[in-house]
Amino acid sequence: MHAAAKSPFAPAAFPQLPPIPGVRLAAAACGAKYRGRDDLMLAEFAPGAAVAGVLARTAVPGAPVQWCRRLLADEHEHAPRALLVNAGQANAFTGEAGLADVRASCEAAAAALGCKPEEVFAASTGVIGEPLPLSKITGAAPQLAAALREDGWESAAKAITTTDTFAKGATARAEICGQPVNINGIAKGSGMIAPNMATLLAFLFTDADVPRDMLRELLAAANEKTFNSITVDGDASTSDICLLFATGRAGNSKPRESDLDDFRRALNAVMRDLALQVAGDGEGARKLITVEVHGAEDDRAAKAVAMSVANSPLVKTAVAGEDANWGRVVMAVGKAGARIDPARLAIAIGGVTVARGGQRVENLDEAPLNEHLKGREISIRVDLGLAAGGARVWTCDLTHGYIEINASYRS
Amino acid sequence: MHAAAKSPFAPAAFPQLPPIPGVRLAAAACGAKYRGRDDLMLAEFAPGAAVAGVLARTAVPGAPVQWCRRLLADEHEHAPRALLVNAGQANAFTGEAGLADVRASCEAAAAALGCKPEEVFAASTGVIGEPLPLSKITGAAPQLAAALREDGWESAAKAITTTDTFAKGATARAEICGQPVNINGIAKGSGMIAPNMATLLAFLFTDADVPRDMLRELLAAANEKTFNSITVDGDASTSDICLLFATGRAGNSKPRESDLDDFRRALNAVMRDLALQVAGDGEGARKLITVEVHGAEDDRAAKAVAMSVANSPLVKTAVAGEDANWGRVVMAVGKAGARIDPARLAIAIGGVTVARGGQRVENLDEAPLNEHLKGREISIRVDLGLAAGGARVWTCDLTHGYIEINASYRS
Repeated sequence: MHAAAKSPFAPAAFPQLPPIPGVRLAAAACGAKYRGRDDLMLAEFAPGAAVAGVLARTAVPGAPVQWCRRLLADEHEHAPRALLVNAGQANAFTGEAGLADVRASCEAAAAALGCKPEEVFAASTGVIGEPLPLSKITGAAPQLAAALREDGWESAAKAITTTDTFAKGATARAEICGQPVNINGIAKGSGMIAPNMATLLAFLFTDADVPRDMLRELLAAANEKTFNSITVDGDASTSDICLLFATGRAGNSKPRESDLDDFRRALNAVMRDLALQVAGDGEGARKLITVEVHGAEDDRAAKAVAMSVANSPLVKTAVAGEDANWGRVVMAVGKAGARIDPARLAIAIGGVTVARGGQRVENLDEAPLNEHLKGREISIRVDLGLAAGGARVWTCDLTHGYIEINASYRS
Repeated sequence: MHAAAKSPFAPAAFPQLPPIPGVRLAAAACGAKYRGRDDLMLAEFAPGAAVAGVLARTAVPGAPVQWCRRLLADEHEHAPRALLVNAGQANAFTGEAGLADVRASCEAAAAALGCKPEEVFAASTGVIGEPLPLSKITGAAPQLAAALREDGWESAAKAITTTDTFAKGATARAEICGQPVNINGIAKGSGMIAPNMATLLAFLFTDADVPRDMLRELLAAANEKTFNSITVDGDASTSDICLLFATGRAGNSKPRESDLDDFRRALNAVMRDLALQVAGDGEGARKLITVEVHGAEDDRAAKAVAMSVANSPLVKTAVAGEDANWGRVVMAVGKAGARIDPARLAIAIGGVTVARGGQRVENLDEAPLNEHLKGREISIRVDLGLAAGGARVWTCDLTHGYIEINASYRS
């Protein structure tokens, strides 16, 4: 296992996550790949929970993604009762055997919990192409079930990490129809991070009582502006899974669409917090980059431009080198495929406009610019000057650390 | 200027390029950016030459790209009489002033050569957004014109480089209607290399007499399989220019389409040679990677998959680390957007099939694989098993050298 330097964006401590009534968690070291750390996580949900999910859009989805897709499509049958996650092997590109393995894992968890396999969601992260260490996972299921507790958030968040340098958690409170509810989230990065969706596992838990259809809409919308708005390397995983479980134990009255504004805000906040933690823990990251695009033809064009900038190795190495090489931003804008009028294009770094009207700003005082680039949070703002489309995405710089980690990850 | 280690793919010496009747070249150090090296190149063509070109498809084309586009579109007026190229400043995103500068440069060259400005093609490479050092370029024009010679190939090739670690030249002979003709080419890379077209300058010169329409078709077709089939970092430049000048001095009889097979082969060979030199001199490159895709729905889908693999930072760092992490190839295939059936997908590295039928090959002997990965030329072959579409592209590994060069290029 590679011991990368801790991200400068790691919090001093894992945040305090409150209990979510109806959710219990446990973690264990099944020893499938890592030594001296937990690598298996089980969450249990009380009967009657609802679930929504967003899954990897790759053409080669891993076995757990296929399993979750089946469960999410299964319209009326099963409320979710559990979530089983292992780190180390992705169980992707493992054929029929991989599908059998995910089913067998869920059967073991179901047996330990006294529910049905089809009530157990699964996610895996790690090396692609290696088989799941099935007996180690099934063997650990009874121990996991026995260890379930309401305050297991930090160990659960740690157990699902791979090259992450810190465990990621977030929480927020909201009110639905006057009733307080909580949303907790845990997530892992930190390579193969690109939309469709961001290469990651993210799990949200709430005690709110929200009908499944509304839950799905809320998750999809929040996902687009959070996990689908970060990128580390433009590489999209086979194994992305984001699930939102709602136990309904808060006892709020059944909400209408208009009752969910505060819940929507809180869900967005938790997911954005986690997304920024993932981007800030991007492999080798020393700086977090926010790319904002305004004035595009529409939001879609704005996001294409923002992602083109955020994925450009030349922009990301310039930021790593603390070099205000905004010409590379121009290049990345130009290759995005969106409608651009160079004469209306303006670029600002750290709030300082460096180029507008198709050329550089004359006699620019570079001192505040250079000061900004020495910081940890870098802002790049592009105004296309065409219409009202906008987007904001986050990425990290491209450093020697990324090479270090990824030239030696598998072995 | 950054002194990067010489690419392991640098030839022992610049190849011997024969004179091309009707072409003379000169190089000079105008001192605009670099010290102690030439950074300005002039080629002169005898009257009556023909030209074809392929230009950057970016939405923010540099001023020389706009200038060349105008000249190439100018259907009947001017035969090309000269080509002026500077390295150090790209004259891109420089607004109306940039367009005026390229015109003024061409006027200076035209005055020194006794031709019209509209007969002078121009290309620039270097930092985006900085103005052209106009007086240094115009001031050097008379000196360049006085120094023109038939054997100036190597110094011309050197003068157009930026972060290249070696000068790139290639040559081939062909016959048209029984008459021998020569094709010489020079090119520069070596970052912002991605198709649409590959971020580079490439100039081809031949004494063949080929009508302009045929020349254009030949160049476009060869470009698609050579310069548009390499990628270093997926970053597409504002300044790509590939021009083919034909002086007609070989005196071959006017060819029909069917007379051009041998010329087409030779042109492809020169452009492919140069493209591989550019890929092998990709910033920080230690290994040249050939990605072949077969069995795709069509050639376009095959190329999308090949480029997705060739542009994946995770694949490229795995190759740098000599790690047979073929799961990352699966990931890159999956995100390409092409139709894929995982159960038909096969992957071979160095001729060793590592995965097929949707999973890894059991009991694989990894020894020959690891031996292959220690070498300099790495082969990745993907068979989609669907139909007959195919593509071959080239890239290089992603190393600390890339970060080193690009975190410090501008300053």
